[in-house]
Amino acid sequence: MKSFTEYLWFHTSKRREFILITNEVADIVQQSGVKEGIALVSAMHITASIYVNDAEDGLLNDIAQWLEKLAPFGLPYKHHQTGEDNGDAHLKRLLMGHQVIIPITNGKLDLGPWEQIYYAEFDGQRRKRVIVKVLGE
Amino acid sequence: MKSFTEYLWFHTSKRREFILITNEVADIVQQSGVKEGIALVSAMHITASIYVNDAEDGLLNDIAQWLEKLAPFGLPYKHHQTGEDNGDAHLKRLLMGHQVIIPITNGKLDLGPWEQIYYAEFDGQRRKRVIVKVLGE
Amino acid sequence: MKSFTEYLWFHTSKRREFILITNEVADIVQQSGVKEGIALVSAMHITASIYVNDAEDGLLNDIAQWLEKLAPFGLPYKHHQTGEDNGDAHLKRLLMGHQVIIPITNGKLDLGPWEQIYYAEFDGQRRKRVIVKVLGE
Repeated sequence: MKSFTEYLWFHTSKRREFILITNEVADIVQQSGVKEGIALVSAMHITASIYVNDAEDGLLNDIAQWLEKLAPFGLPYKHHQTGEDNGDAHLKRLLMGHQVIIPITNGKLDLGPWEQIYYAEFDGQRRKRVIVKVLGE
Repeated sequence: MKSFTEYLWFHTSKRREFILITNEVADIVQQSGVKEGIALVSAMHITASIYVNDAEDGLLNDIAQWLEKLAPFGLPYKHHQTGEDNGDAHLKRLLMGHQVIIPITNGKLDLGPWEQIYYAEFDGQRRKRVIVKVLGE
Repeated sequence: MKSFTEYLWFHTSKRREFILITNEVADIVQQSGVKEGIALVSAMHITASIYVNDAEDGLLNDIAQWLEKLAPFGLPYKHHQTGEDNGDAHLKRLLMGHQVIIPITNGKLDLGPWEQIYYAEFDGQRRKRVIVKVLGE
């Protein structure tokens, strides 16, 4: 079994951002030399998500609005008694999930026709990390 | 390490459907010959989910109603400016998740007593695909 | 490829509880001898979750309140016609997810600075099981 680990770093200029990372993950899989296996892509900071969906600007907008409705910024979260103001960002990560597994077939990401991998930042403007771990043969 | 990849195809007659696929996944695992490992089951279309929960009709109804409340059909989603009308289906997939990993122990799916694998379609009436990738030994 | 499987048992005194299990998972990974790979941690009962987030009491409180708002206890769920009263607990598990994959690098859980693994019980006071399956080399 082969394994290969790489880390992606993000430092967004805005508090909330959606960043397309399909190509970065594909590059890491190619470097790994793995032909059949999986790539785990996992956000290592607890106010960011990794998810797979469409690369369409209208939809990104819809997702952002929807998250704001279901996990609003600015409520008096108990977590804020620690001095933080990002309670909503923790909940948004929980709702969207923090990791995906991408299947690798014939040396390539085995994604559906519109599947794209996104990093979703909910409390940015600082350096954060994503692990990409490739396993297979 | 062994790997084995199969695709399941779905073409639902209704827009929204829950389809039990535990047996199909178990069959693929058996064909793979893997005794210890994992099976990744992942919806390749971005308006469908894979999840694990109870095979109980009342609950399926509850899940459908709950999703309709949290991610309603028919709102003026920005995504609809592309000509689509399935903004809700993208959000439903995000809420329910699009993939699960089933552990394989002694050649069998290692599921809890009531765990069943479901394909959830939120924008059907067309052909869609699910990848099942088995890895192990 | 090495594989190693262990089960954790939980029997909470309260209906809803959050239990930190990072150390238990780390111990199992150490026992497995796997240096590079993954650990699947998956709740085998359909009214419990596994998730990764902060070990901060205020946040745990926020998560509990938020789940109660999005998937309330005590509604007339159709699932209750079977005699159960835990429809909300099924929905809470779906919202929070039932499994995580922890990357293993250099023999250790490769978690971010504040990432902690939690078992979330939504319908406790009975014995329930979590599988931890380690794969790698």
